Amino acid sequence: MSPPISLAPLRIVLVEPAGPLNIGSAARVMKNFGLSQLVLVNPQCDPHGEDARQMAVHAYDVIEAASMVSTLPEALAGCQRAIATTARTRDLQTPLESPELALPWLLETSPTALIFGPEDRGLNNDEMLQAQRFIKIDTHPPYESLNLAQAVAICCYELSRVSQRPVQSVPLTEFSTSSDAATLDDLDGYYQHLESILLKIGYLYPHTASSRMRKFRQIGHRAALSTQDVAMLRGILRQIDWATHQETTSKSP
Amino acid sequence: MSPPISLAPLRIVLVEPAGPLNIGSAARVMKNFGLSQLVLVNPQCDPHGEDARQMAVHAYDVIEAASMVSTLPEALAGCQRAIATTARTRDLQTPLESPELALPWLLETSPTALIFGPEDRGLNNDEMLQAQRFIKIDTHPPYESLNLAQAVAICCYELSRVSQRPVQSVPLTEFSTSSDAATLDDLDGYYQHLESILLKIGYLYPHTASSRMRKFRQIGHRAALSTQDVAMLRGILRQIDWATHQETTSKSP
Repeated sequence: MSPPISLAPLRIVLVEPAGPLNIGSAARVMKNFGLSQLVLVNPQCDPHGEDARQMAVHAYDVIEAASMVSTLPEALAGCQRAIATTARTRDLQTPLESPELALPWLLETSPTALIFGPEDRGLNNDEMLQAQRFIKIDTHPPYESLNLAQAVAICCYELSRVSQRPVQSVPLTEFSTSSDAATLDDLDGYYQHLESILLKIGYLYPHTASSRMRKFRQIGHRAALSTQDVAMLRGILRQIDWATHQETTSKSP
Repeated sequence: MSPPISLAPLRIVLVEPAGPLNIGSAARVMKNFGLSQLVLVNPQCDPHGEDARQMAVHAYDVIEAASMVSTLPEALAGCQRAIATTARTRDLQTPLESPELALPWLLETSPTALIFGPEDRGLNNDEMLQAQRFIKIDTHPPYESLNLAQAVAICCYELSRVSQRPVQSVPLTEFSTSSDAATLDDLDGYYQHLESILLKIGYLYPHTASSRMRKFRQIGHRAALSTQDVAMLRGILRQIDWATHQETTSKSP
């Protein structure tokens, strides 16, 4: 199995970001997913102020290391490939793709860039055309406009997801294969103990016991009881036995 | 092609959120992806203040319509299924799954809930065990901790993605896909009943009850109890209660 592709060389380019909270949040989520190359094009706020630090928390190093440039072409210098994000269907006559479909293309070479527009207007047509492909995160009316940092988060998550091999499902029955799964002997001893107690307390009657006990066995199998589980459950049975023994004793002449 | 599944009935439950910016951002991204049921459990900040409004922008209606409750069980009232999110590998001995694998399971019935913990500590073990499944968004060292609103954004995106391309969910167990799965209310009632009986018969002591009860919840979750199973198990509890009542009665002067 091949190791996941590193996302480290991938640039996140924010064009004229105006919200320091967004810059901080974007830096944090980049670091969360293993990205580190932040490029700010002509930022409209102070990326080193208190608001940005507050949201970056332990990712302020990403902001400190960020490149500051004046134009988008400078931000893309040396890149082989770039994808632009947009919130709207534009008249660019170029197809808009989902992140899932387009982002793997950025991972086939390096360096590459993913471009986000300003909070208020998004990327304009000239800016869009600096990229070769375009993605739109599919949102819903009546409020389609994603927050900038949320869009960055979703793209970083999707990049991370597609950079890894198809995830193997965690088998939900993993308990049954674990080394401490109760043996069949243990289980049988437990079910016999359970049956005797349920008869004793008058929950089961001899003529219905076997069908009821099948249901308890089904539940136990689904729960994939461990040795410890069985010991714990038998502890309850002993306690019930003790409690009802008190009753019998006190009733006896 | 079947129409996308509506995400509208799905509850986003934030337990003790302390950051109004996060509540605002979460509301915005919920609305972006077609979710509207926000439930705040014992919020530690003002969800109607200026900070929350600033981030919610045109989704402040989601906050205005949010339910405010005191406890997580109240937040989950009536839900068939719940998934809890966690940032860490816990000692719950329950598998952590990816959002992609587990979230489709919430779309197979309704209402269902997705639970997020407080910013500083995440969900504790008791809170986690109110849910039947657990997801972890796979992040990278050295900074794995996602911002709360970013985690909500990623999950809403993933829910929207999987809702549009009906994927067969990985069933919790084969059984859990049946329509007669016990509701979370039923399960909670059963565990409370079980705890009271185990205390009464002297199996549990008040100071150890909660850790033991966590184990019983784990077993029950793995078994994916049905409504009939819960009714049957509660029948046993009533019978134990009756049997020990006999004891008390016969002992009385």
